Amino acid sequence: MVSGYANRLLYVDLTKGKIKKLRLAKSLIKQYIGGKGFGARLLYDLLPPHIDPLGPTNLLMFFTGPLTATGAPATARSIVITKSPKTGTFLDSNSGGFWGCWMKMAGYDGIIITGRAPKLSYIYINDGSVEIRDAEHLKGFGVYATIDSLVKDVGDKDAKVAAIGPAGENLVKLAAVMNDYHHAHARGGPGAVMGSKRLKAIVVSADTSNPKFEIADPDGFKEFNRDFIKEVVMGPSQEWARTDGTPIIVRASNNVGVLPTRNFQQGVFEDVDKIDAETLRKYRTSKGACYRCTIACRNITKIKDEKWGEITLDGPEYETIGLGGSNTGLGDFKAIIAWNSLVDDLGMDTISLGNVIGYAMEAYERGLLTKEDTGGLELKFGNADAQMELSKMIAKREGIGDVLAEGVREFALWLGGDAYKFAIETKGLEYPAYDPRGSIGMALAYATSDRGACHMRAWPIAEEAFGDMDPFTPEGKAELVIRMQNFNAVKWSMVFCDFLDINYEKMAEYLKLVTGMEYTPKDLETVGERIYNLTRLFNVREGFSRKDDYIPYRIAHEPIPTGPNKGFAVSPEKFQKMLDEYYKLRGWNKDGVPRKKKLRELRLGRDIKKVSIPGASY
Amino acid sequence: MVSGYANRLLYVDLTKGKIKKLRLAKSLIKQYIGGKGFGARLLYDLLPPHIDPLGPTNLLMFFTGPLTATGAPATARSIVITKSPKTGTFLDSNSGGFWGCWMKMAGYDGIIITGRAPKLSYIYINDGSVEIRDAEHLKGFGVYATIDSLVKDVGDKDAKVAAIGPAGENLVKLAAVMNDYHHAHARGGPGAVMGSKRLKAIVVSADTSNPKFEIADPDGFKEFNRDFIKEVVMGPSQEWARTDGTPIIVRASNNVGVLPTRNFQQGVFEDVDKIDAETLRKYRTSKGACYRCTIACRNITKIKDEKWGEITLDGPEYETIGLGGSNTGLGDFKAIIAWNSLVDDLGMDTISLGNVIGYAMEAYERGLLTKEDTGGLELKFGNADAQMELSKMIAKREGIGDVLAEGVREFALWLGGDAYKFAIETKGLEYPAYDPRGSIGMALAYATSDRGACHMRAWPIAEEAFGDMDPFTPEGKAELVIRMQNFNAVKWSMVFCDFLDINYEKMAEYLKLVTGMEYTPKDLETVGERIYNLTRLFNVREGFSRKDDYIPYRIAHEPIPTGPNKGFAVSPEKFQKMLDEYYKLRGWNKDGVPRKKKLRELRLGRDIKKVSIPGASY
Repeated sequence: MVSGYANRLLYVDLTKGKIKKLRLAKSLIKQYIGGKGFGARLLYDLLPPHIDPLGPTNLLMFFTGPLTATGAPATARSIVITKSPKTGTFLDSNSGGFWGCWMKMAGYDGIIITGRAPKLSYIYINDGSVEIRDAEHLKGFGVYATIDSLVKDVGDKDAKVAAIGPAGENLVKLAAVMNDYHHAHARGGPGAVMGSKRLKAIVVSADTSNPKFEIADPDGFKEFNRDFIKEVVMGPSQEWARTDGTPIIVRASNNVGVLPTRNFQQGVFEDVDKIDAETLRKYRTSKGACYRCTIACRNITKIKDEKWGEITLDGPEYETIGLGGSNTGLGDFKAIIAWNSLVDDLGMDTISLGNVIGYAMEAYERGLLTKEDTGGLELKFGNADAQMELSKMIAKREGIGDVLAEGVREFALWLGGDAYKFAIETKGLEYPAYDPRGSIGMALAYATSDRGACHMRAWPIAEEAFGDMDPFTPEGKAELVIRMQNFNAVKWSMVFCDFLDINYEKMAEYLKLVTGMEYTPKDLETVGERIYNLTRLFNVREGFSRKDDYIPYRIAHEPIPTGPNKGFAVSPEKFQKMLDEYYKLRGWNKDGVPRKKKLRELRLGRDIKKVSIPGASY
Repeated sequence: MVSGYANRLLYVDLTKGKIKKLRLAKSLIKQYIGGKGFGARLLYDLLPPHIDPLGPTNLLMFFTGPLTATGAPATARSIVITKSPKTGTFLDSNSGGFWGCWMKMAGYDGIIITGRAPKLSYIYINDGSVEIRDAEHLKGFGVYATIDSLVKDVGDKDAKVAAIGPAGENLVKLAAVMNDYHHAHARGGPGAVMGSKRLKAIVVSADTSNPKFEIADPDGFKEFNRDFIKEVVMGPSQEWARTDGTPIIVRASNNVGVLPTRNFQQGVFEDVDKIDAETLRKYRTSKGACYRCTIACRNITKIKDEKWGEITLDGPEYETIGLGGSNTGLGDFKAIIAWNSLVDDLGMDTISLGNVIGYAMEAYERGLLTKEDTGGLELKFGNADAQMELSKMIAKREGIGDVLAEGVREFALWLGGDAYKFAIETKGLEYPAYDPRGSIGMALAYATSDRGACHMRAWPIAEEAFGDMDPFTPEGKAELVIRMQNFNAVKWSMVFCDFLDINYEKMAEYLKLVTGMEYTPKDLETVGERIYNLTRLFNVREGFSRKDDYIPYRIAHEPIPTGPNKGFAVSPEKFQKMLDEYYKLRGWNKDGVPRKKKLRELRLGRDIKKVSIPGASY
């Protein structure tokens, strides 16, 4: 038994209707810590290669980390792990809220789900007891109604729910696993995997006064945690998060010309003052927090409007504003709140969805889509009604929504001709809200992210446009991206929130106090590197290589027309130079495959053979 | 306008409900001839890479060839082309019958289908008029009832129907596109693609007295065809086909020890006399033929039995007997007829299904599956009732059938541990009925087949166990397999039936008379090589390489225990030697990727860049 962990995993086979409780292995803990690390190791070991991500054999796993529910700040998180139906890659997708903490307090560091239920079902975890229950009556329900209904059904008003909406049921590849209404495991389509398993929700009741894990040094932890909160969390580096949270980035991004505008046609939005943090404050009724988080970054907003009705939202975040606001040309904060609320209820990723809608709008304005194609929608930039309607069509897979539900890459290639040239994605995952034409390191970060274009693996813009590094030169960016990727791999294994200002030293101290295990900062960095190499191996096994580490045509060939970065594009030459350097520093070959030497160094030697699918070695 | 062709393709977008008629390009005809060749070129050009084969953007295409419906023997065929949901590879799957001839006589060399209908639909082609019609009333219908119902609906008793059964609707990856009751485009799951498009059937009415194509030299063709039929079709080399057809192979395979028995545990079946051609004759009521085919290889059988009732079947073929008879330990011809009839009605591939059931039976006998897992089925070899029941469960995706519906590889890997060691497949496609441990060339043929383990790309056993070559040595097998693969690529482009004894010289003569185009035998060989390289390029673009060209563990490591090949297994060394030689002779690199030099030589130079997915070159 290792302190800090419940030391148990739940294994649910929905095909057989069987539930097992498994002991967590110490070697797994030591080498992978938790969260993303657990998932990287277990998905690699347990998932057959080349399977259909929406078939019954895909695994859907949820994990927490050693600090979850301990009272450490910014740790109220859970990680979903699966093979992404959107990209075909390894996927980890994390979310705040309460649900993950409940799972751990109920006695489970994670849940591994396999198979497919014969009919729509939900899993009910009530501390030690676990059941698979009928959810047919929730078919087609939105996320909000699903949560409300299930909390009543189980008769525990404090129960926490992770659920899918209609998008997940309809296997929409933008579908999220939502929890606690507005928190989303959003990227890469985990909601579609949950839908393919006919699993509507996982409900957890936990005796929060008696959490099923111990802390190695409770007094030491208390003291260290109190000091850390006082010095760091309440300190100046976290002020942005404590006050306005991520929406503060809207204006910052616009200032440096990287705010995606009208499907990345521009990096500056003329209506930025209608969607920035100042505007948000007008609609904010209070601040909110995930379970026991002292940062409390959440903005609770409210609108009451003839058009949109009365809406209370925990949001919107920067990414939602960037993709569902400027990127769709929508300078209307109330409409953004209404859209965010709708999309959370439908259960989709606002980043990918905003990107897809922005793309569709550009295609419409270029005449590649007609009113007939869109079922009558006037799909112009800034048309809030069309944005709402199209979101519903995508969630329901109606008309053109059925193809858009596959994501921007597949839709663009389906349109044919040159339409793909303005699809902004890597590996099939839509770009988030930082245009690399104002921070070239982001191009490398998106290209080498293990789950497709993502800013949560490395965020070099912090040192580029938002920092002191030259944002237009490839110099030093490979090293920076690698450092950040390794660090974040540890962060998502601990599991910390992105917004916490922490370093390896403090992490090691937390780990020592909570688990009793000793890590040096260097040890932790190695764990991060191990995880990032393992997720790469997963992708290599699935057929990914250098050819998949690309940047979109627009980013490479269309200089940004306005703003501070006017005239700049990420030239293929500069990009390839960064990529070459990245592979070299990573110890990967020119095709992006980890070299044996590197794998042995990371104790991944035994995985070398496994890169081939079974049978391949004969 | 080129003689021999209708010179038109039908393009149906089921999402938009739009139908277009396209002109067939001359350059396509010249370089690719028809059928598989057309499909290889168009799928490569039109299909976005890395798409979900069961999403709306996959293409489902049907083609005929220049000889279809001309009266040339063994040409009453159609080819379905798609990205396989079973393997993720290029897929061409061909079928005899009448339907393809009707499509061409109605004026279409092929149909390209994209998108997904909002509800279950069928396409009705009535010569020049084409409609998408509602098929909701046919939901869940078996193939037979679907065909009967649609023929009535359209009011043309001579209408021909290609349809899917419940398996296709349920996206079972073993699902076939059936036509004319018992003819199947079976392998690789094209029925699941049709199901994903919510397309229940394609019905064709044609004015057969006025086919919509011309013959370049009608008198010359008539004379040549008459002589060819007299000399070749009615000659001694085709006697086997004219008399008993493929079931004659049952005993031949058993004699040389390659008849798959109890999931390839043995190569000799003790009850062979209960399933051979002699036994078939007891149940045969007449011989049958595809449209205007003078070979007439089909066996019309009938049983009337207390247990199975009264069944009339066009079949069974050798592969059905091998996989659904000896491979499941079933020495009962009546049961095989009943099973064949059931599986045709459910709309599945008897090869893959028989392999999957044999595998499940072995897993059950080994204790890896229990009665609880199987829903009470006593899944022992030779249990006909269990075989019938499991087939239904797979078609309906019930219980364990949901996982078996994914195919043997995914099921085996799902069982975990060493269970994969007795899964007999390559690239996810189940082995057909020739055990390579009695003809080593078959191991190479299966490994390098473009659609996964298939005997219809190369059939070297003809020269090995059934011919004069040493069946246990790798010498000369690479050259033989390549020669056969290229030849068959042309055969499936013409489109000829496998059973026709023809060579390049005769093909060229047929082509000259029907189309007016001149090809030398060498030209045709080049066409075959071009097609085989292009389907390889498709697979490479999807991430396939040497690692996917493998042989199953059992074939490599378990010497066959009885019969004439006792003690022999295909050693990894011998296999790799063949594979090295194969790549070298093909002009492919050591990883199985076609070299630029070879591609330029085959006029595929412009495709070199396209191997990367869009964006990859930036």
